[in-house]
Amino acid sequence: MFTFQVTKNDDASAARLGRLSTSHGVFDTPIFMPVGTQATVKAVTPEMLTEMGAGIILSNTYHLYLRPGADLVERAGGLHKFMNWPRGILTDSGGFQIFSLQGLRKISDEGVVFNSHIDGSRHFLSPQIVMEIEQKLGADIAMCFDECAPYPCSYEEADQAVTRTSLWAKRCRDSHNCSDQALFGIIQGNIFADLREKSAREITALDFPGYAIGGLSVGEPKEDMYRILDLTHQLLPTDKPRYLMGVGAPEDLVEGVARGVDMFDCVLPTRIARHGTAFTHRGKLVVRNAVYAADFRALDTDCDCRVCKNYSRAYIRHLVKAEEILAHTLITYHNLYFLIKMMQDIRQAIAEDRFNEFYTNFYASYKF
Amino acid sequence: MFTFQVTKNDDASAARLGRLSTSHGVFDTPIFMPVGTQATVKAVTPEMLTEMGAGIILSNTYHLYLRPGADLVERAGGLHKFMNWPRGILTDSGGFQIFSLQGLRKISDEGVVFNSHIDGSRHFLSPQIVMEIEQKLGADIAMCFDECAPYPCSYEEADQAVTRTSLWAKRCRDSHNCSDQALFGIIQGNIFADLREKSAREITALDFPGYAIGGLSVGEPKEDMYRILDLTHQLLPTDKPRYLMGVGAPEDLVEGVARGVDMFDCVLPTRIARHGTAFTHRGKLVVRNAVYAADFRALDTDCDCRVCKNYSRAYIRHLVKAEEILAHTLITYHNLYFLIKMMQDIRQAIAEDRFNEFYTNFYASYKF
Repeated sequence: MFTFQVTKNDDASAARLGRLSTSHGVFDTPIFMPVGTQATVKAVTPEMLTEMGAGIILSNTYHLYLRPGADLVERAGGLHKFMNWPRGILTDSGGFQIFSLQGLRKISDEGVVFNSHIDGSRHFLSPQIVMEIEQKLGADIAMCFDECAPYPCSYEEADQAVTRTSLWAKRCRDSHNCSDQALFGIIQGNIFADLREKSAREITALDFPGYAIGGLSVGEPKEDMYRILDLTHQLLPTDKPRYLMGVGAPEDLVEGVARGVDMFDCVLPTRIARHGTAFTHRGKLVVRNAVYAADFRALDTDCDCRVCKNYSRAYIRHLVKAEEILAHTLITYHNLYFLIKMMQDIRQAIAEDRFNEFYTNFYASYKF
Repeated sequence: MFTFQVTKNDDASAARLGRLSTSHGVFDTPIFMPVGTQATVKAVTPEMLTEMGAGIILSNTYHLYLRPGADLVERAGGLHKFMNWPRGILTDSGGFQIFSLQGLRKISDEGVVFNSHIDGSRHFLSPQIVMEIEQKLGADIAMCFDECAPYPCSYEEADQAVTRTSLWAKRCRDSHNCSDQALFGIIQGNIFADLREKSAREITALDFPGYAIGGLSVGEPKEDMYRILDLTHQLLPTDKPRYLMGVGAPEDLVEGVARGVDMFDCVLPTRIARHGTAFTHRGKLVVRNAVYAADFRALDTDCDCRVCKNYSRAYIRHLVKAEEILAHTLITYHNLYFLIKMMQDIRQAIAEDRFNEFYTNFYASYKF
């Protein structure tokens, strides 16, 4: 059974500590969730995720529906068993992916007709169908099927997406009937304050066990994102978890926490890893650069992860240049550890009434 | 310091048990050595190699000389430290790779001029230079620089390669001066019995601490390989380890052990893994095939490795189809474990005087 409890509120900001309970573990918030789009967090094993302290991971309904199919995952005993991940899983509804698809897709109030990015085959997804799929996948947290407007978009487009997201949220709620899976509503509204207010009002009226802030980190300036977050957390109930979708840059995690966000996910740490870039306490480090060819220091000299304890920049750069898979694995491991550890440090700071100090120190050392 | 001791001889075959001691551990033979060409065993971590019971791994002088360079590895503290592998390492001399290169290369008694496969740059390697490189890399076992004749080749070509391999072996021995690294000689001679005899006579006269059988598994029929092995092990001293280079098919390991071979290496288990093929006790299984789409059994139902305990064919096939890195990692792990475990079982069988029974059972269940 899913429960959430706020255990502490920061005095100087909207930051807070909380605790999520699921059938697959209890997780402290604020939390960063690694992304395992296709039922695997790219380049690392579940054992590595456990070792680095990952709690909940995210997987993707759109991708799993197309391949290998929700029925197969259900026959395997659900997503946890299929991918050998015993801890928490959240499934994104696929809305974001479908609305990002190039080419033909037709949206109506009933749902979306689209072509698969894998083989071009034609598909129809409605809120009800997505609920069926997410229940077959069996994650601990499922997301409502929503319409995510692009950035930039007109006020009218954003308004229509809010209206449809509310309509679909009701249909999702009415057709979702798995008591062991929490269904979260999603707030849309792009960068328009009044649309965010409208969306929050309509979605929270449906009384979900958690709320996501969608449609941010889609290309808008950071000031817009922070402004909308400043607004949105005040529109959401204090006793439910708040999940900022698709956000994972270190500075955005810090800013999100300061604005009352409890959960984050993003492909950033795993994606930049595969391009040879590592997070460090002093900013990003492009380890494939020639300057690191004979640098025998750790990726991040302030990090105590298994990778930083055992491998040098010179070795990892060699792996990157030689196109070895281990390069992906090592940098991905470090990047995920970096964010997970950062969230632990943030929780510790909030617990000790020094989140403000953490915030200042972060910007003093992290270079852009 | 390097030592080798034969601890038991099989009564019914040339199979034997032995023990290799190096500065990085003591290893029971017969042993299979995973290949880490570019200072990494493709798709797995050193921790995984330790967990699966790997003892010595092989790395490649030609590749490491070109990238990242022997000087860099030396500055890193040697190959063990560079790649975070605390157990045994053997470096191949690069002869095989250079003689396999397409395009321009010029061989003389002095050495080989060739073009890099990476950037086309021109290089010269001689026995003396290769010894310098291998000593900088700092493996526990180094191989002499040899000339490996292709298959098929004329008697004259094979004879010339034997003569040059002997000349170079003497130069290697004379210039090698690292007491903490054992230098092995290599027997050539292609599929010609009298050339194998000549090569064995000349190379063993140089009194190396170990001998490799090179120039096999290069395309010749299996009968030729087995015939040459039948002959060669009788030409080698019984108190020195015998290493059959580039051999790693399960049946060839069994046949090699029966012919007195103590050490093997091969890219086969890691290479076929990346193409979606797994070893099993019943033969190879092409897990990417559609027939495994909903097969929730382990890759090998008779295997107790971490992969077989936790993942299904259906899941691994999904990863292969979705082009996920984890597919490579899981199948590579299993394939290496399969060979390492097979060698453990072989050692156990020899120890218990039932290698003949092992041999019969292997062919009864392994399908080609």
